[in-house]
Amino acid sequence: MITGLLFTPLRRIATPKGEVRHALRASDAGFAGFGEAYFTEILPGETKGWKRHRRMTMNLVVVCGTVRFIVRDDAGACAVHEVSVEGVAPYGRLTVPPGLWMAFHGLGAGSNLLMNLASLPHDPDEADTAAVEAFPLA
Amino acid sequence: MITGLLFTPLRRIATPKGEVRHALRASDAGFAGFGEAYFTEILPGETKGWKRHRRMTMNLVVVCGTVRFIVRDDAGACAVHEVSVEGVAPYGRLTVPPGLWMAFHGLGAGSNLLMNLASLPHDPDEADTAAVEAFPLA
Repeated sequence: MITGLLFTPLRRIATPKGEVRHALRASDAGFAGFGEAYFTEILPGETKGWKRHRRMTMNLVVVCGTVRFIVRDDAGACAVHEVSVEGVAPYGRLTVPPGLWMAFHGLGAGSNLLMNLASLPHDPDEADTAAVEAFPLA
Repeated sequence: MITGLLFTPLRRIATPKGEVRHALRASDAGFAGFGEAYFTEILPGETKGWKRHRRMTMNLVVVCGTVRFIVRDDAGACAVHEVSVEGVAPYGRLTVPPGLWMAFHGLGAGSNLLMNLASLPHDPDEADTAAVEAFPLA
């Protein structure tokens, strides 16, 4: 159990001209302010991480493919969430509060793309990084 | 010339494990508050519209494929923007202030997906709609 880590299943609404998918509302649990939205691609079989934000809350939504998120706290607890728009895993939003280590892995065979709706704009001084090998990936 | 309509080119940053793409910062021109983020797919050759928001500012970012946006004001002015992540058209963000009619067309042969970073959460009473045939698409 990692305090503050939250997975929220999200609606996908089929329409004849293409799907509408929910991502985040300002009234949702886990919303911690809007600083920046950006996209990160993770190629099949690759892992980006580790990163630990000191002040930013991340709200992470998978846009293409399937992504495995691995989250660790300083007490050694680990949580793994697989999120997808391909039907392999549930579609939803992962809220990662500050202070947790996070890595993510591209599971889909094609493009794996995620969006971070971040509570703060990008600031390299606000985050710690560690090599992918620094911690176990599960 | 449509007052308040703004196209902002955005950075794409290549990395060996997958690209990072900018979308919106709270300090950017065109940001009008955060109410909701959602995704809308538009199938190849299809057109969604028309819709006119009375209070919402939309910040629209193409996530997959290529999308043509058609925007009209009540004085009859029309603006067309094609936005892409495929290299066919520039990547960037289209800011649409309230009071304008907007339609969008799926130009890419595969999935065409856009994100709206909306200044307000969804509220059907805040928008007017018209059939695709109501206005010319260029």
